[in-house]
Amino acid sequence: MLNSIEESPLHDIVSPKSIALMGASTGFSMGTVILNRLQEIGFEGNIYPVHPKADEIRGLKAYASILDVPEPPDLAVMVLPAPTAVQTLEECGRRGVKNAVVVSGGFREVKGVGEDLEKDLLETAGRHNMRLVGPNCLGVAAPRYKMNTTTFPLFSKPGSVGLISQSGSFVTQMFQQVESLGIGLSAAFSTGNESDLDLVDCLEYLGACPHTKVIGLYLEGIRRGRDFVRVARSIVPDKPVVAYYVGGSETGRRAGYSHTGALAGPDGLYEGVFRQAGIVRARSVMELFDFCAGLSLMPPPAGSRVAVLTDSGGPGAAAADACGRTGLELPGFSPETGEKLSPFIPATGSVNNPVDLTFYKNPDDYTTNIPEILLQDPNVDMLLMYFLMPREIVSIAMKSMGVPADQAEAESDNMLKNQYKSIADLIKNNPKPIIGYTFRNQEDPGIKVLTECGLPVFQGAERAARATYALAAYTDLRNKVAKSLNASST
Amino acid sequence: MLNSIEESPLHDIVSPKSIALMGASTGFSMGTVILNRLQEIGFEGNIYPVHPKADEIRGLKAYASILDVPEPPDLAVMVLPAPTAVQTLEECGRRGVKNAVVVSGGFREVKGVGEDLEKDLLETAGRHNMRLVGPNCLGVAAPRYKMNTTTFPLFSKPGSVGLISQSGSFVTQMFQQVESLGIGLSAAFSTGNESDLDLVDCLEYLGACPHTKVIGLYLEGIRRGRDFVRVARSIVPDKPVVAYYVGGSETGRRAGYSHTGALAGPDGLYEGVFRQAGIVRARSVMELFDFCAGLSLMPPPAGSRVAVLTDSGGPGAAAADACGRTGLELPGFSPETGEKLSPFIPATGSVNNPVDLTFYKNPDDYTTNIPEILLQDPNVDMLLMYFLMPREIVSIAMKSMGVPADQAEAESDNMLKNQYKSIADLIKNNPKPIIGYTFRNQEDPGIKVLTECGLPVFQGAERAARATYALAAYTDLRNKVAKSLNASST
Repeated sequence: MLNSIEESPLHDIVSPKSIALMGASTGFSMGTVILNRLQEIGFEGNIYPVHPKADEIRGLKAYASILDVPEPPDLAVMVLPAPTAVQTLEECGRRGVKNAVVVSGGFREVKGVGEDLEKDLLETAGRHNMRLVGPNCLGVAAPRYKMNTTTFPLFSKPGSVGLISQSGSFVTQMFQQVESLGIGLSAAFSTGNESDLDLVDCLEYLGACPHTKVIGLYLEGIRRGRDFVRVARSIVPDKPVVAYYVGGSETGRRAGYSHTGALAGPDGLYEGVFRQAGIVRARSVMELFDFCAGLSLMPPPAGSRVAVLTDSGGPGAAAADACGRTGLELPGFSPETGEKLSPFIPATGSVNNPVDLTFYKNPDDYTTNIPEILLQDPNVDMLLMYFLMPREIVSIAMKSMGVPADQAEAESDNMLKNQYKSIADLIKNNPKPIIGYTFRNQEDPGIKVLTECGLPVFQGAERAARATYALAAYTDLRNKVAKSLNASST
Repeated sequence: MLNSIEESPLHDIVSPKSIALMGASTGFSMGTVILNRLQEIGFEGNIYPVHPKADEIRGLKAYASILDVPEPPDLAVMVLPAPTAVQTLEECGRRGVKNAVVVSGGFREVKGVGEDLEKDLLETAGRHNMRLVGPNCLGVAAPRYKMNTTTFPLFSKPGSVGLISQSGSFVTQMFQQVESLGIGLSAAFSTGNESDLDLVDCLEYLGACPHTKVIGLYLEGIRRGRDFVRVARSIVPDKPVVAYYVGGSETGRRAGYSHTGALAGPDGLYEGVFRQAGIVRARSVMELFDFCAGLSLMPPPAGSRVAVLTDSGGPGAAAADACGRTGLELPGFSPETGEKLSPFIPATGSVNNPVDLTFYKNPDDYTTNIPEILLQDPNVDMLLMYFLMPREIVSIAMKSMGVPADQAEAESDNMLKNQYKSIADLIKNNPKPIIGYTFRNQEDPGIKVLTECGLPVFQGAERAARATYALAAYTDLRNKVAKSLNASST
């Protein structure tokens, strides 16, 4: 285990002080797109575009060769045809460049001559003591370091989710989803063909990274199985690791192979690896990000007993069913809880679990008073809360009752502000995890206000129950790993 | 089986020519909210508010009693305390009213005196030959008839999804989701306690309804099991029926009981009922609506063989995995298809299934040329297509390349328009089902344009694969039911 990220070979790749970029031009090219991304995110070091002919690219002085660049940059990023990339890496080595992100495809994943080119690439790097991410990757996205070697604009705030993906798609194409879930990235790696630095190196980096609270993995295949398990086990006592393995079905395995040439194994083998490593397993890409959201925003629970709070019967029943199906328990409450709840629950409601308020006059009952009673119950480890939050419905209702439009909208905005404060306080004042669910859209203003105050909110009872399950699963895995590490160290 | 909806006791309840409303007032009340909803949706018949004191409610003349209303209305809608509702129903009977939606709670679901009140309600209705929806329900929402007795504003267009829900929540609280999926409701019923008209009656109505292409059921328990199976089997050869049963888990069963007092049975029993009835089973509320979207927008496929088309490797692998896990087959293509595809696929791409384009210069390749080749393959029953549709990313990219802002935005809008036309034509020109998936938000403009032209698009490969599975499952169930009906009729 690393003592700090500075010890990781990835440190200078995630936060370089200077970058040479090969493949950007005065026209349109993937390299130019990446240059745009680096400028747009506000990369603070020097960027040296290298181009055989251009004098200037997007306002920056361009150099004919890496040999002409005034300093050996911390990192070379190259988007060049595969054979040219090998030659260019050789020149980088001679110039004293120590790190490269090789975005180019056309290596092992295309078989034949590509396999030879990948060997040459690796041999060249080895000869010059260089470390590589890629080839056939999108490199690194790390908002905290204003770093983005991918092709997608990254506007989201720095966060605490570290991501390692053997597909570039699931770094870049999930940027919007990451924002919708109200989370942010600490550092995201697209590892591509992993000819040198691989997912285990990235895992070690994120394990040591003080900003990373949870690590998510998109896997098409693991090469260094033993190292993977060892490193994951060293991390899991401190932070959760979540993985989605795409090769688990026969169809997924074939697709993964044709994508990055990964050597996938049978589902049962990976299931065993994840269990041994203490990794929470997600069943889909969406779950991978949902689990990361829940685990990064909420503390680990003591166990798997869930109180469900709703103001509408059907969503309560749906949450109870979803919890049951994923192995969570809905406990009965202590007698004290029943007594404390009853003044808040109308005759039409239910003081059992799920607690169904049916309606309420004082919004604080729903967002503060009842949740606090439930979270204090010794039988309850977590709270799953339903949110309808019909901000525009309130405003429409008021308008149709004759309230002037501006007053109706002010009133519903006010409702949102109060909701924000109550939920933010509820999270701050309670050490037990709280998860929200809704059937509204994630972009609905009433839902956005909840994610903005740090509550993970999922669309549909099933996604929420699964994210709640992930919290309980982590507690269980962490305890097992910690126990077995303690046993082996004594 | 009914020959037409006119034969159904629900006909005058879904499309009454006049309504008496008991429970609306000059102040705020649930009844007033329902009156607002009826006015807002533009109900075209007469509305007679009944109120002991008010002369006028929301611009309408109010009557002290149903006995004073100038004509016996087709329907009485009442939101009154339970004992008052029983008395009022008696008066309605005497006035010659033949149908009622009893929104009021406080009946069987609260046990004790509520059970007696529900018996009185039913006995009163029987004495006067009246038919009832409810009590403890939200009644009917049917945009085509400008009819909405629920508490939620209904703005979505008339559509072809019929909905029957034993929870009012999953009528009203899914209005936004229905719109996001690009579908609309034909008629939605919240059946509540089902003291008189029940889910079987609603099923018969929707079976006969010419506007309904697919029927979705949210179930907490089935009372008339045999009738249910018989009616469903008569419908399934013509239109799919999808059901989500919330009582399948122990926790769900308990919650459903406390919600509407439904007598739920073990999961295996319901599984058998659904199989016998030819009903496609959804695992969650979200799936219920996803399945209805896919089945209402796309024709039934011949079988379960899926071609996956992507321009990005990871999403292709994720779709292949999700298809495999849900029991769909990814067939190899015919030699002709391979030949026809190869000019379109760059060296970095894959002509196998999933077809991965990696990149393309001509957008029509992705939205027209390649899909048509795949849909013509005799091994392919359905097409699952990935959509990134980064409209705002295109616009950002162009702007950062120095294209003036207005030109960049016009260009990306143009891209959307072309996409719309291509996809609409693709759907029109091909008889095989097409399903889209994305990791963008449903409200993203690039995704909205797809749903607007009639393509079902789901967030995440798993939801899309499950909706694709539902199409294949319906074909299978329909064939089995049709075969067994033919066998028993000869």
